[in-house]
Amino acid sequence: MDTACFKEELKNRVAEIENVISSYLPAEEGMASKVFEAMNYSVLAGGKRLRPMLVLETYKMFSGDNFPIIPEAVSAAMAAIECIHTYSLVHDDLPAMDNDEYRRGRLTTWKVYGDAIGILAGDGLLNYAFEILNSAAVKEFEKSDIVMAERLVRASAVLSKKAGSFGMIGGQTADLLVEGKGAAVSIDELLFIHKHKTACLIEAALMMGAILGGAGESDIKAIEQCGYNIGIAFQIQDDILDIIGNTEELGKKVGSDAANDKVTYVTLKGLEQSQKDVEKLSNEAAEILGKIDGDHDFLDALVMSLVNRRK
Amino acid sequence: MDTACFKEELKNRVAEIENVISSYLPAEEGMASKVFEAMNYSVLAGGKRLRPMLVLETYKMFSGDNFPIIPEAVSAAMAAIECIHTYSLVHDDLPAMDNDEYRRGRLTTWKVYGDAIGILAGDGLLNYAFEILNSAAVKEFEKSDIVMAERLVRASAVLSKKAGSFGMIGGQTADLLVEGKGAAVSIDELLFIHKHKTACLIEAALMMGAILGGAGESDIKAIEQCGYNIGIAFQIQDDILDIIGNTEELGKKVGSDAANDKVTYVTLKGLEQSQKDVEKLSNEAAEILGKIDGDHDFLDALVMSLVNRRK
Repeated sequence: MDTACFKEELKNRVAEIENVISSYLPAEEGMASKVFEAMNYSVLAGGKRLRPMLVLETYKMFSGDNFPIIPEAVSAAMAAIECIHTYSLVHDDLPAMDNDEYRRGRLTTWKVYGDAIGILAGDGLLNYAFEILNSAAVKEFEKSDIVMAERLVRASAVLSKKAGSFGMIGGQTADLLVEGKGAAVSIDELLFIHKHKTACLIEAALMMGAILGGAGESDIKAIEQCGYNIGIAFQIQDDILDIIGNTEELGKKVGSDAANDKVTYVTLKGLEQSQKDVEKLSNEAAEILGKIDGDHDFLDALVMSLVNRRK
Repeated sequence: MDTACFKEELKNRVAEIENVISSYLPAEEGMASKVFEAMNYSVLAGGKRLRPMLVLETYKMFSGDNFPIIPEAVSAAMAAIECIHTYSLVHDDLPAMDNDEYRRGRLTTWKVYGDAIGILAGDGLLNYAFEILNSAAVKEFEKSDIVMAERLVRASAVLSKKAGSFGMIGGQTADLLVEGKGAAVSIDELLFIHKHKTACLIEAALMMGAILGGAGESDIKAIEQCGYNIGIAFQIQDDILDIIGNTEELGKKVGSDAANDKVTYVTLKGLEQSQKDVEKLSNEAAEILGKIDGDHDFLDALVMSLVNRRK
């Protein structure tokens, strides 16, 4: 898939995914409408929509489904993982956490609605992810589609595990705890953080799509490994861009990690080795995808765009 | 059931429930062990264990199950609802919310572990509730017990709805928003808050037990109404005790609501009417239970103890 074609496809898909997500957002009404407003404000802040995109593409690859309409079980999974990703950003931005006032050029949720609503909106989104998945699973039972009900439950189980304290929340905790350690952070600690804070939710996205698409055990295991590689490569690339990136393209001050005395993959391993590792991880990811039957042209291009990005 | 017998039974059940809950707690290990410590500290802070108790009693009533061992689906539901209840307290206590330093005579979670870990531990518990339920449902599928898998999914759907922004989180939001309104709070607003902040999770407890016990649609509806009555009566009784209670028994300063100029059910309706309403609500709850076949002696006594409590 050439670059122009990929960019066009990407744009179409983001628009399609935003439609799906919007269809799940709560109405802003009633005495508690403020929390719905804050939830919707957070979800509608833009972003790459990477995780729902990975769910959809992996589902397509395994199911061979060439639908004009996305099945409800799949759209539920897409909306749910975006709610989880969004809540993690909303809570991360809080004054008690990273104390960030801007994200993607807009005021952060707590900056607009206050700390307390920021906490509740994050809780609301985390909870809502499982409301969406549970309600989709109940519908499958009502249609007597036990196969899809089971797949949804398994997908939800993966999401809850990868997003929780054994996954993403564990990564955020570890990240918080090493903050004071400065140069004493080891490569193992750094990889634990990247694996849990970043890779776990990428793994979940791919696994959810695979499970809903009817993948077998060994394919689910392989796709989990693929998600790990993508997540870690993505994160190392982030560190590389901080050193060599173009400030304008990246939208943040280049060298800010170094200026903050922050230990990164690049400060520990050096630039050259880091670039080699990104290449190795992404080649392995592509290899895993290559072994799976089904159409994964867009997914291949997406993975390459993530790890080769210049911003 | 006489008072002495009820107290003895209650003690036994609390001990039994604490064993169940403890069996689900995560091991405090690995780089993120701090968040597990904070989660466990929060769950092990004591409390009435009311919600898991209601799950278990309602399950027993509908299933007629006279087990020596609690089925895994039921114990999962018990642990999950206690995780939800606990996370809501952990987040409520945060400096950005109620800024409470003590709960049940112990330092609150954020006071021990800091704000950031307090937020993450709350997130961890909320997420963990659905990890527990999802993993229990997957097990039922693996045993090919589709009936129990469906019940678990339906129970999880109820919990996620009643705990989320359409339920408990909505109630917390509304409670937060009326704080500045002083005497201008209406009875409808107050009932919205009590219904969502308190009653929703009581409703969820009873409904989860009913669903797992195989109750039909109309019984689940009835038991939901019963939960509403218990929740509201419980909350009005709280307001009454603030006026007439014995400071020592209650463990908080009597009259503190009035001193804070806080609008309560009692300030809006008067003491006499409030007492009548508690009686009416609890009689209706007892009537609903009375119409259900199965053993509910302990449940009856429990409901009465909640609304007639002196502390």
